[in-house]
Amino acid sequence: MSLRNFFCPSSVAVIGASREEEKVGHIILDNIINSGYKGKLFPVNPKADEIHGIKCYPSVLNVPGDIDLAIIVIPAQFVLQVLEECSKKNTKWSIIISAGFKETGIEGAKRERQLIEKAKDYGIRILGPNCLGIIDTECPINATFSPNMPPMGKIGFISQSGALGTAILDWAKTNKIGFSKFVSLGNKADISENDLFDDWENEKDTEVITAYLEGVKYGREFIRISSKVSKKKPIIVIKSGNTDAGARAVSSHTGTLAGSAKAYEAAFKQAGIIRANTIRDLFNYAKAFSYQPLPKGKKVAIITNAGGPGIMATDECEKSDILLASLKKETIDGLKEFLPEAANFYNPIDILGDALADRYKKTLEVVIKDNNVNAIVMLLTPQAMTQPLKTARAIVEVMENSGKSITVLTSFMGGSEVEKAVKFLAEKNIPNFDIPEEAIDTLKVMMEHTDWKSRRSFPIEDFNVDKGRVKKIFYQCQSEGRLELGEMEAREILEAYDIRMPKAELACDIDEAKEIAGRIGYPLVLKIVSPNILHKTDVGGVKIGIDNEKELEENYDEILFHVKRYMPDANIRGILVQEFIKDKKETIIGMSEDPQFGPMIMFGLGGIYIEALKDVSFRIAPLSRQVAREMVEEIKTIKLLKGIRGEDPSDIDSIIEIILRASQLVTDFPEIIEMDINPLFVKKQGEGSIAGDVRIRIGG
Amino acid sequence: MSLRNFFCPSSVAVIGASREEEKVGHIILDNIINSGYKGKLFPVNPKADEIHGIKCYPSVLNVPGDIDLAIIVIPAQFVLQVLEECSKKNTKWSIIISAGFKETGIEGAKRERQLIEKAKDYGIRILGPNCLGIIDTECPINATFSPNMPPMGKIGFISQSGALGTAILDWAKTNKIGFSKFVSLGNKADISENDLFDDWENEKDTEVITAYLEGVKYGREFIRISSKVSKKKPIIVIKSGNTDAGARAVSSHTGTLAGSAKAYEAAFKQAGIIRANTIRDLFNYAKAFSYQPLPKGKKVAIITNAGGPGIMATDECEKSDILLASLKKETIDGLKEFLPEAANFYNPIDILGDALADRYKKTLEVVIKDNNVNAIVMLLTPQAMTQPLKTARAIVEVMENSGKSITVLTSFMGGSEVEKAVKFLAEKNIPNFDIPEEAIDTLKVMMEHTDWKSRRSFPIEDFNVDKGRVKKIFYQCQSEGRLELGEMEAREILEAYDIRMPKAELACDIDEAKEIAGRIGYPLVLKIVSPNILHKTDVGGVKIGIDNEKELEENYDEILFHVKRYMPDANIRGILVQEFIKDKKETIIGMSEDPQFGPMIMFGLGGIYIEALKDVSFRIAPLSRQVAREMVEEIKTIKLLKGIRGEDPSDIDSIIEIILRASQLVTDFPEIIEMDINPLFVKKQGEGSIAGDVRIRIGG
Repeated sequence: MSLRNFFCPSSVAVIGASREEEKVGHIILDNIINSGYKGKLFPVNPKADEIHGIKCYPSVLNVPGDIDLAIIVIPAQFVLQVLEECSKKNTKWSIIISAGFKETGIEGAKRERQLIEKAKDYGIRILGPNCLGIIDTECPINATFSPNMPPMGKIGFISQSGALGTAILDWAKTNKIGFSKFVSLGNKADISENDLFDDWENEKDTEVITAYLEGVKYGREFIRISSKVSKKKPIIVIKSGNTDAGARAVSSHTGTLAGSAKAYEAAFKQAGIIRANTIRDLFNYAKAFSYQPLPKGKKVAIITNAGGPGIMATDECEKSDILLASLKKETIDGLKEFLPEAANFYNPIDILGDALADRYKKTLEVVIKDNNVNAIVMLLTPQAMTQPLKTARAIVEVMENSGKSITVLTSFMGGSEVEKAVKFLAEKNIPNFDIPEEAIDTLKVMMEHTDWKSRRSFPIEDFNVDKGRVKKIFYQCQSEGRLELGEMEAREILEAYDIRMPKAELACDIDEAKEIAGRIGYPLVLKIVSPNILHKTDVGGVKIGIDNEKELEENYDEILFHVKRYMPDANIRGILVQEFIKDKKETIIGMSEDPQFGPMIMFGLGGIYIEALKDVSFRIAPLSRQVAREMVEEIKTIKLLKGIRGEDPSDIDSIIEIILRASQLVTDFPEIIEMDINPLFVKKQGEGSIAGDVRIRIGG
Repeated sequence: MSLRNFFCPSSVAVIGASREEEKVGHIILDNIINSGYKGKLFPVNPKADEIHGIKCYPSVLNVPGDIDLAIIVIPAQFVLQVLEECSKKNTKWSIIISAGFKETGIEGAKRERQLIEKAKDYGIRILGPNCLGIIDTECPINATFSPNMPPMGKIGFISQSGALGTAILDWAKTNKIGFSKFVSLGNKADISENDLFDDWENEKDTEVITAYLEGVKYGREFIRISSKVSKKKPIIVIKSGNTDAGARAVSSHTGTLAGSAKAYEAAFKQAGIIRANTIRDLFNYAKAFSYQPLPKGKKVAIITNAGGPGIMATDECEKSDILLASLKKETIDGLKEFLPEAANFYNPIDILGDALADRYKKTLEVVIKDNNVNAIVMLLTPQAMTQPLKTARAIVEVMENSGKSITVLTSFMGGSEVEKAVKFLAEKNIPNFDIPEEAIDTLKVMMEHTDWKSRRSFPIEDFNVDKGRVKKIFYQCQSEGRLELGEMEAREILEAYDIRMPKAELACDIDEAKEIAGRIGYPLVLKIVSPNILHKTDVGGVKIGIDNEKELEENYDEILFHVKRYMPDANIRGILVQEFIKDKKETIIGMSEDPQFGPMIMFGLGGIYIEALKDVSFRIAPLSRQVAREMVEEIKTIKLLKGIRGEDPSDIDSIIEIILRASQLVTDFPEIIEMDINPLFVKKQGEGSIAGDVRIRIGG
């Protein structure tokens, strides 16, 4: 359902409109009137006949005709009744400003649930409760209790904090940052960021979607919608609350390293969401995206009238993996025609401290024609002869005449001397940044978004696996009340999903072990098998590198001796005789269930690396092959897998294959809440990967 | 020599003062007059009788009486002669604004060298050339060609970029940021940051030293002066130009990982310099340091009228290792007396959206008494009833009445609604930050500076070593024209500095090898020794894990076979029979000569870690034991040395000991330009460390 009528209703009732000036119900009415709202406006208040000369109705039911949007500003306990009345006036939309719901505790949460149920019955969508309201600058309507209506613009802003919203609105108005829409989400009982992202995908006034979120609703839906919308419009989000709330009970490696912050990070990456770390970044990015076209490549030209800021910008380019464009010969020749000899004709182009507007203009005219340049950053410091405003006009003029769609950002530095220039640039859709570093950082984010948009989305592959076999194992486990799978069971599950494990057979005595050894071949690994022993190494239950029959005999006995001494009561099923994997690197693939986003896959280098460096990457399952590759390439120690010091590269493709199969497994069986394939032995390129061990836990 | 007369001279001559308004020589004269300078002012210009009604002199020699400070604004080729004339007027200080020196190329550099030599003879100190001049707001004098004199304040600012200086001055004036002094360094032919830091250590008007530097002059002197001054006053530096210029010829691991950026990072740490990443950070920090006392500990209380910004601040605390103070029971009880029930009485303290100034005031009064709190951050968003200015006044009032020295920072967010409040806070020395994250980040930097100031400086230890022996070896090498030391020579050097290496003896035939094996004991390592073979492994010249005499015989022959095949002409001195070190971790200690700061020591975990992760730390030699410990603790993989998964911890003390001895070695012998002790085998705690191999290169 389009939200068009929500943002620009034909008729609005303010239920709880008040004559007392300091009351929210009064302020909202004021703001709607002052914003120039052109639809019908009905204040509702049993105690007033009129407010501001507008007729006031004793109840919703007395309002003549339908009410598109009901804005409710009355105490929480009366909201439900009003909603019922609204339903009789064909109301489709409501904004519940009133507090006193979920945010106040158990009673309030109950009240909120009732509200949602009833609203569904009535067919009324709700924004809030406990919110600030909405603004639509196009309609126009300011249905918030903040008097600061920002100027019209292309940025849609969603805030999960109403208070932060007021600060942003004040800041936007003061700094002339244009918004298309503003929405305060409140408790998100019904309308959430998902609805808004989805609606704004095709909403013509909004070109950049921005949001302050403290959490998302319906994680998987969030990823689905965002990854679709972000291909059309940038979605820039600041997500606060990155501390993991409380300790969760986890027993796996993956569980220890996972957590809510990691899940959000993974989800945002998969959804193509641009993450801002601060409000400052959020609007730096939003300004640039809404003012300027996306750069088509990674190469920037910097034009400056001072060396220092040029160096600062260059440093930041290096940090951000942005390339300084190599200027074409004709560009350099063109610059040499008019720039003074002492200028720097190469990138960053230093046109010297005495540069007037005209020199900036000529330089830009030459550089803009260079096809090696994808974006231009113009730096200016106000020196003795500098003409900031005239320079700003010159830049705009060149851009307008060039007919070229190229990204141009500026950093005119200083205070009052550049103020008018900066304002003029903003009016002409050229974003200015207080410091060069912020211009470059913003450019980086724009370039990454270009990459994201150009990336094809690959489908999730569906491997031919033996689901039935796995189903049986889980059924068996659950029926026995076990939550941790045994080693042989876990092996079987991987087998069913075609994830190779070392060849292995269970031996009940030494003769059987010798027979098995004959089949598998030396070297071997021996492992005790017992449902009572989880940490085999601790009880001397593992021996590796068994090279011949003599060693097999010795070690077989030794394991039994140790285990019987440490755990005399353990139920021993036998000893697993297992292929020893040579020439391998140890990695880990894991899964941990995130309460918000569901199964989250982890990959990292194994052993001490994982413990000391926490060098792992996460993605939300199911994954496409492309995303799986991305998560493998993302770890810092990837060089070790690619082969350093002339080492052979490892079989990275086989890791990806196993990640995909593991992703399918945990997606097929939501009862899996934790899984560690640890170690996953990776052999040389072309030789595959083998799961050395696996632990699987299922939900109770 | 104190710079007092330089910053506030009794008499100033402007040589090159001009009547033409757009000329620098005119603007400077104007600025000096407009700044309210009270000393004698002498314009010098042969073509003018007076400028602005001030008598103008045809030459320096015609000026009546002495000239304290000569400001020179004439073409480069005439500067030398003017300097000579100045010497006859007892001039002690000069500011050379004129360009046309080192910055223009070889000719200019020559001219600059002449200038410096002559100035030394005349006893005249020089600022510049090619600079913007100086400002002293206390004197007052604005002897720059920027008309923007900032208000009086406690921040001294040094800029190596004149143009950036003009932007900063404009910005400071607009934002009412107070400066004590401003200095544009220009080419730093004579007066450098070192002189200024040293002078400002005891200069009463300057409480915070800030600088924009593109490089430092005399690196070791810079560290010496800065580490002394930073114990008294914070020195905040933004250092640009972090890209290493060009590829250097390096042959060692250390050399590959070192470089100018690493050297600056190390030097700044050792000197207690606070590093700002951007101009924004620089002045955020400077404001806080100049307005507020240092926090005495790491615990902060956050007071907010909105949840969102509270969460943002909390997130940033977590990132910055700042602790949210646990409020005392009496604090919480005190808050409960007047805060509404829905408020959050714990940290961050949420006093709700309807908080008026009075509620802020009462809250601050209670919290300020809590001794668990070292710093307070007050957040405010302008909601419907918020009173920003009144709240600002209340904060100031509480602070003034409390008589307590506690750090208070604010983040009043928004635009015009908080503008007056922010201005008022600044006037009362309470720094406001646009966003909460910047307040917390600044607090972190202040807390780190508290740590730095409280840290005792430990002396450099002087080990009893055999310097004479090392001197002989280098002499021998140099006389043979060799730049890379042989293995036996390098071993001997470490021995002379009491750095243990594996027991080893050179065998010339297999019988000798067996004899040696008898003395050292198995297992062993065999290594070819030849001055022609640098990469022994590549030619099959190394065998490890020799367990018995049979293996010794086999491997001895095998090495000779391989080496003779690969390098038939190599001059083979024999085979080194060496102790095999068991149960160890591999680390690396290295040294690389930095052109700016001299010998730089590196430490890191060895092997693949160093190549893939570049997890290493650097410090400039010589080091105190404390600094050596710091550099060991700094690496990310330190956990591996401290022992994870119940592993025994490694002997970290012995690493530190070897770092110190290596530091002494490279300090004693500046001819060493590169050294790698790689691997350094570290055994269990108490068992020491052993240098597995060492390579040393000396300068030509």
